Amino acid sequence: MAPRSERQIFRATLELLAARGYEGLTVEGVAERSGVNKTTIYRWWPSKAALLAAALVEADLLVLEPPDTGGLRGDLEALVEGMVALLTRPPASDVAVAALGAAVHHPELAEASRRFFADRFAREAAVFERARRRGELPATADPMLIMDLLAGAVWLRAIFRGLPLDEGFPAQVVSAVLDGSATR
Amino acid sequence: MAPRSERQIFRATLELLAARGYEGLTVEGVAERSGVNKTTIYRWWPSKAALLAAALVEADLLVLEPPDTGGLRGDLEALVEGMVALLTRPPASDVAVAALGAAVHHPELAEASRRFFADRFAREAAVFERARRRGELPATADPMLIMDLLAGAVWLRAIFRGLPLDEGFPAQVVSAVLDGSATR
Repeated sequence: MAPRSERQIFRATLELLAARGYEGLTVEGVAERSGVNKTTIYRWWPSKAALLAAALVEADLLVLEPPDTGGLRGDLEALVEGMVALLTRPPASDVAVAALGAAVHHPELAEASRRFFADRFAREAAVFERARRRGELPATADPMLIMDLLAGAVWLRAIFRGLPLDEGFPAQVVSAVLDGSATR
Repeated sequence: MAPRSERQIFRATLELLAARGYEGLTVEGVAERSGVNKTTIYRWWPSKAALLAAALVEADLLVLEPPDTGGLRGDLEALVEGMVALLTRPPASDVAVAALGAAVHHPELAEASRRFFADRFAREAAVFERARRRGELPATADPMLIMDLLAGAVWLRAIFRGLPLDEGFPAQVVSAVLDGSATR
């Protein structure tokens, strides 16, 4: 498939998901919105779950380019800022929250969620490799755990608690994870 | 309403949610399963969203009693162990994941999610008050941020990444948050 058609299909898939929810997402609707023939879409992705899985991993809309600010703290703050924007600023947040909500709610999307987060983590790895080389992280530090803590805190605060994240949140959450909260 | 009937209604609500999803949850189904008259249920909770909101906050199934191990580290590890169990061990995990997934997926449940997490945080406050009195946390520490990090990491790893949480996970995640990950 031509990259341009693919991008249009993925964009239409995510827009439709945000507008109508997973229940309202259909391959027919994606065909109509993207201008690509329905049978062509089915040839590449045999179900709406497969289509959404591909769209989640590939779509530009949900890509956060790993930052390179010259330091681990700045890189992690930029990553958290990106996650905050993705989960709280429409229209990206409508798509992201609908997609992640659907992934929890529909077991056939669990594999899509796993692939999405594995793909993000592969991109984030560069941040941690540079931090190790600069001596900012000990060899025992666990990059996946650090990402779980940061991304998880954004999700908990913004989505489950439904509380606003103020401007200082990225720096606070990164400081908590890098410096620790206990009395020393 | 008699406390016993209320408990039965909430339990039936959560069991039905786990079995059939939010779409399959009906007040009629809850009436049948709990043995309580449908019109009685409607008198107290005017919609299935209102019923589920009440069930989420009140049901025994989702209550984690705040631990008191004598130290902050042990208390937080016990809290994380409880969250891991809640999100990964059936039948509680079927209910918890279905309820939290529905809360993300259905905007009419956002208020229920907020109430659920606010109620949990009110219970967890005792852990942090004791830690402050023992001098384990500085005055600047942010208990809600600590809970966002811990609960968020469990959610990210278990649900979004779909990865197993080994026995050491609670101690690792608590150490990351209390001690920090950066080189010192």
